[in-house]
Amino acid sequence: MHAITLDAGTLRFRDDYPLPTPGEQESLVRVIQAGVCETDLQLARGYMGFSGVPGHEFVGIAETGGHAGRRVVGEINCSCGQCATCQAGRPTHCPHRTVVGIDRHDGAFAQWLAIPESNLHAVPESVSDDQAVFVEPLAAAFQITDQVDITKSDRVAVIGDGRLGFLSAQVLSLHSEHVTVFGKHQHKLARFADKGQSVATVAAPDPADLPHHAFDVVVDCTGSTTGLGMAVQLVRPRGTVVLKTTVAGTHELSLAAIVIDEINLVGSRCGPFDKAMDALQTGVIDVDGLITNRFRLDQVEQAFHSATQPNSFKVVFDIGSDPQ
Amino acid sequence: MHAITLDAGTLRFRDDYPLPTPGEQESLVRVIQAGVCETDLQLARGYMGFSGVPGHEFVGIAETGGHAGRRVVGEINCSCGQCATCQAGRPTHCPHRTVVGIDRHDGAFAQWLAIPESNLHAVPESVSDDQAVFVEPLAAAFQITDQVDITKSDRVAVIGDGRLGFLSAQVLSLHSEHVTVFGKHQHKLARFADKGQSVATVAAPDPADLPHHAFDVVVDCTGSTTGLGMAVQLVRPRGTVVLKTTVAGTHELSLAAIVIDEINLVGSRCGPFDKAMDALQTGVIDVDGLITNRFRLDQVEQAFHSATQPNSFKVVFDIGSDPQ
Ligand SMILES: [Zn+2]
Ligand SMILES: [Zn+2]
Ligand SMILES: [Zn+2]
Ligand SMILES: [Zn+2]
Repeated sequence: MHAITLDAGTLRFRDDYPLPTPGEQESLVRVIQAGVCETDLQLARGYMGFSGVPGHEFVGIAETGGHAGRRVVGEINCSCGQCATCQAGRPTHCPHRTVVGIDRHDGAFAQWLAIPESNLHAVPESVSDDQAVFVEPLAAAFQITDQVDITKSDRVAVIGDGRLGFLSAQVLSLHSEHVTVFGKHQHKLARFADKGQSVATVAAPDPADLPHHAFDVVVDCTGSTTGLGMAVQLVRPRGTVVLKTTVAGTHELSLAAIVIDEINLVGSRCGPFDKAMDALQTGVIDVDGLITNRFRLDQVEQAFHSATQPNSFKVVFDIGSDPQ
Repeated sequence: MHAITLDAGTLRFRDDYPLPTPGEQESLVRVIQAGVCETDLQLARGYMGFSGVPGHEFVGIAETGGHAGRRVVGEINCSCGQCATCQAGRPTHCPHRTVVGIDRHDGAFAQWLAIPESNLHAVPESVSDDQAVFVEPLAAAFQITDQVDITKSDRVAVIGDGRLGFLSAQVLSLHSEHVTVFGKHQHKLARFADKGQSVATVAAPDPADLPHHAFDVVVDCTGSTTGLGMAVQLVRPRGTVVLKTTVAGTHELSLAAIVIDEINLVGSRCGPFDKAMDALQTGVIDVDGLITNRFRLDQVEQAFHSATQPNSFKVVFDIGSDPQ
């Protein structure tokens, strides 16, 4: 089949990659389209030392298993279901897990994908392929509001004007009437207004220009090691900082402010697919027009390059139309 | 009066320091004894750039104000009471605050101290001077359980076998039946057994020897920039790390684990005096024998040196017997 592989930091298109053999509890899924995300760009730079087929944001058609014949999206953590962590209700933290397209499990930049059947969620008719490919990253944004109680009057800041910042700001706006996005790029910030979002945007390239102690909750979506320092400056004493950024590399940071201001710092990763799907189906979250670039699998280089460009938002691989 | 002053990192005994002039809402307190804590050692190394009279753990006799004639201890944050932060119920985070013996407010290593009357708490008859001098640091330990819900079955780790680690472990043992203290010094760890505490102690000098993901809650009382990395290793996914350590200097740390394991990191500082006083009065917390060394104010050098020695626990200045 057609697939993109990553090996020792090198991305390659292959037209002869072997079809995946599903395990006992796994379904075979024919991929329709798959999105490129920040993590993919980092994997390509060597993060996690992943080798195999990347890709973890996808919509496809289940070919086997209980969902056979239906459109599906899939959660990315493949857990054992048996260990103490799984039994305690934290399967996304199973120490035995593999992660689709990220950690020892071939992903969705391929014509076919094998994935635990219990990871799959059927996509309702009314949710399009272009919407469904956003379920995984949108779920990660909904994880913020699953972890932190946010009320209408809370002053919420999002640092970062990229994909994750955008989706996070949309989700946060469902809870708070006071969402402010801090970004570096005027044209990226313009997207928030284009979407009619009730968020204020501030182009603040210089940490020295950021206000102090002005927000109850601050979400770091910068994807950079500098984000946390800015967040700690923006948040009020006893406020909450949500860290969405996984970056390879170390933060050099004085943590004295976290103690002195008694800040609550919360790491946040994968989230609830059901809430993301509901939000797309009911239309409270609008992702129309956010796919800015479409590529075939054999255009892997252009696609990954495009995903780093400021004028692109979501880059997807259009895989369903590849010849079988 | 007799006082110790700190100026540009130099500690000095003075017998001619002017008596403090209490402000409108302040009481004058005659100091009986005052404890030396980690923060004092750091101030002496230049942390906060403090100059003036250090000392913030004390018991004394109020000479003026509503508590006149009574033994008192005092909270250290002197807040404005008027600003939005104070009105929101977070006076210890008042942006206009001074801090007794730490930040622009002369402290308790002196015969007399001026302090807002509302900061004072009367000491019941049954609580001795030697117990009362522990109210401030013990309150900081109680802040942990004010911020984090801890249940009987929670596995709790304390990293650090010093003063703060000891008091924190005592308080945590009131909530959890599974408290483990990790320390570097066998003779310091022996103190926990001496006090009949139901805590397990582990001498783990090497982070490589620490277990992974074994605790629900981990409290960093190391006073060192290396503590957080150990805590992040010890705590389970979605567990809580409490950071009590304020250190001058930067942490160089990969925060990826905080995101991947969705750890909740909580900064923790000053705490509830009422809970600390109650615990001493009812005897659920036992601090008897923890004062290992007593000095006069003019022995400032010996006292500060002694406080850094592994075989000392709490060093106090015995001030009440100085000639007036
Ligand atoms: Zn992703
Ligand atoms: Zn498991
Ligand atoms: Zn102290
Ligand atoms: Zn105030």
